Amino acid sequence: MSGFRAPFTPEEYQRRLRLTRAAMARAELDAIFVTDPSNQSWLTGYDGWSFYVHQGVLLTMEGDPVWWGRHMDMMGGRRTCWMGWENILGYPDRYVQSTEIHPMQNLAAHLRERGLGRARIGVEMENYYYSAKAHAVLTAELPEVDWQDATALVNWQRLVKSEEEIGFIRRAARISDKVVGVALERAEPGLRKNDLVADILHAGITGEGEDWGDYPAILPLTPSGADASAAHLTWNDAPMKVGEATFFELSGCYRRYHAPLCRTVFLGTPPDAMRRAEAAQVEGIDAALDAARAGSTTGDIASAFMAVLHRHGLTREGRMGYPVGLSYPPDWGERTASIRVEDTTVLQPGMVFHFMPALWMEDWGLETTETILIGEDGPAVPFGTVARKLFAKG
Amino acid sequence: MSGFRAPFTPEEYQRRLRLTRAAMARAELDAIFVTDPSNQSWLTGYDGWSFYVHQGVLLTMEGDPVWWGRHMDMMGGRRTCWMGWENILGYPDRYVQSTEIHPMQNLAAHLRERGLGRARIGVEMENYYYSAKAHAVLTAELPEVDWQDATALVNWQRLVKSEEEIGFIRRAARISDKVVGVALERAEPGLRKNDLVADILHAGITGEGEDWGDYPAILPLTPSGADASAAHLTWNDAPMKVGEATFFELSGCYRRYHAPLCRTVFLGTPPDAMRRAEAAQVEGIDAALDAARAGSTTGDIASAFMAVLHRHGLTREGRMGYPVGLSYPPDWGERTASIRVEDTTVLQPGMVFHFMPALWMEDWGLETTETILIGEDGPAVPFGTVARKLFAKG
Repeated sequence: MSGFRAPFTPEEYQRRLRLTRAAMARAELDAIFVTDPSNQSWLTGYDGWSFYVHQGVLLTMEGDPVWWGRHMDMMGGRRTCWMGWENILGYPDRYVQSTEIHPMQNLAAHLRERGLGRARIGVEMENYYYSAKAHAVLTAELPEVDWQDATALVNWQRLVKSEEEIGFIRRAARISDKVVGVALERAEPGLRKNDLVADILHAGITGEGEDWGDYPAILPLTPSGADASAAHLTWNDAPMKVGEATFFELSGCYRRYHAPLCRTVFLGTPPDAMRRAEAAQVEGIDAALDAARAGSTTGDIASAFMAVLHRHGLTREGRMGYPVGLSYPPDWGERTASIRVEDTTVLQPGMVFHFMPALWMEDWGLETTETILIGEDGPAVPFGTVARKLFAKG
Repeated sequence: MSGFRAPFTPEEYQRRLRLTRAAMARAELDAIFVTDPSNQSWLTGYDGWSFYVHQGVLLTMEGDPVWWGRHMDMMGGRRTCWMGWENILGYPDRYVQSTEIHPMQNLAAHLRERGLGRARIGVEMENYYYSAKAHAVLTAELPEVDWQDATALVNWQRLVKSEEEIGFIRRAARISDKVVGVALERAEPGLRKNDLVADILHAGITGEGEDWGDYPAILPLTPSGADASAAHLTWNDAPMKVGEATFFELSGCYRRYHAPLCRTVFLGTPPDAMRRAEAAQVEGIDAALDAARAGSTTGDIASAFMAVLHRHGLTREGRMGYPVGLSYPPDWGERTASIRVEDTTVLQPGMVFHFMPALWMEDWGLETTETILIGEDGPAVPFGTVARKLFAKG
């Protein structure tokens, strides 16, 4: 075991393998090959900015997982995975972005060698890092394999967090508090948005005391005014203006774990419509947290919020949250359950969601959100400590 | 035309459409659907952190391109694309991460409506943002379409940069100079690596004067000591140490354009082996820049470097560069030509490469790189101005 850098205890990784193998058994799979960097890291500890080339983790029903990637990244695998070096495999550089040979041919050879040439194998069909081409090459190379779609099979095992993971999320949340605090404090008329973002990232990566900051899976989203009606615009150099709301969609990150936290600041006196939306949003969040109890469902959280919103004469569409924890770009959501009215996921203690009932209007946006922990009993508890309101300055 | 925010002139976008359509004609395609965010942005100006859901650009042989994405991101499309709003299409939020319906069903309906139900359509089979599932759903929905692999079709059109684009890369390069300068200046024994990265990102996003910093498509890679033998490790809180080399793989970014620049710093007195490698590397870069002339090939660049390296008794494997320009995470390379001995791409004026003949040894790494412009005649010219050497401090 190299293991000196994987962030969790051996017991924690064994817990993860047990959960995953139970899901594999239910799906009658002999093996899975996972390309989602979050799933790779959750199973093996692997951590590196190498997901832009083909790589993944092979897990069968026995033995340690195998990390497979570019030869150059084997060194990173040896330094971050908990498994022995014999379980870190690399393919030669000539496979990288070649139009003649494909890394999946190399993987196929490994699968054959391991007696998996006629096995039932799950792959993550819906994942950023498993291209249409990768699937086409792999299935052509191994025509006798019974390929199954195992999208989100591992992700679902990540839904209930261990105590170790919750500890990481608490550290991330302290960084989130700091980062949102810096954004609210620094915001002022005339400040270029990129200068604000520079301070936000600096605060996040400096971290909080011993808790050093890792890169968040989504970079700061901080649109102002009418731009704030567009949910995913990144920054430019436009100066902040009196009379405009700016929302901060931010997260601290501690060793790849996230605790997103959003707040909105208005420079000047917010219009009545925004204040009314704020009142509805804050009351709705209270109701939603109260509904977010073990035994209830994700749909119950959404319905509790929507009931308050409707009572205030407002409406919204779309989902309002998702589980969070370990993540890599381009998304910090876990892509399993959704907090939306029609979702029926039963809440269990240890689940962690980013509850984000943002209100996006025609010409402004209001984001006030919390990362919440489902408890043994009682309402969900937010990880953050920043006041839950629309901040007005000046 | 909304167009108030797309960064280039209408003529520049028309140039891009012409080049792309000529390539489509050569491949006898009626249409392409591109999901690579860089290709989307290059064709339409679209810019937002929304690539974690399905979206793309449809281009036929006539008319303006069509941007298609999540309904929520239509607002971002209207604010960043140059086309009229009728060419910005959105699918409802219920398609997002649903296990029952898939966004590609919505796209398929649009293709049918536009008379493309039996057309010959190119898709980017090898792309982070075109999943195996997306392709499976799209092809099942439109069985009479003649699907073709158009991976890199648009990317190849991006290889020769316009004057406007070179101007953007120059701005990015000024930011790169600043960022590498900050890294070299701040590096000292005892400094936590995350604190150094915080300063690096702060410098990059603040930018240089009026040239504000955008987020680089790869976050800072700054490994030290033995970690530096692992090419793609990100940072942690380990303090910098006397006796260790740290390489900085960094890029400024100006409106999504990159000019990567890497340098290495050694705290203390570098060992002789590293100094010898430095001498070979620097001499090799000179030889390679001299070989990087219009009419020669990418392979010639690599061979010129390798000849010097061999003369110094050193060797290396793997490619040593790639074209750069417009990019989104997770990679700032354009994924077309490669600077490697066997690559035969003919160099043309206006091509821009990140030439990165890094030397990764067993227990240290030495990165000295340049982003270079192929000129009308004469050797390639680096965009950066930082001295080309191994920096030693203390």
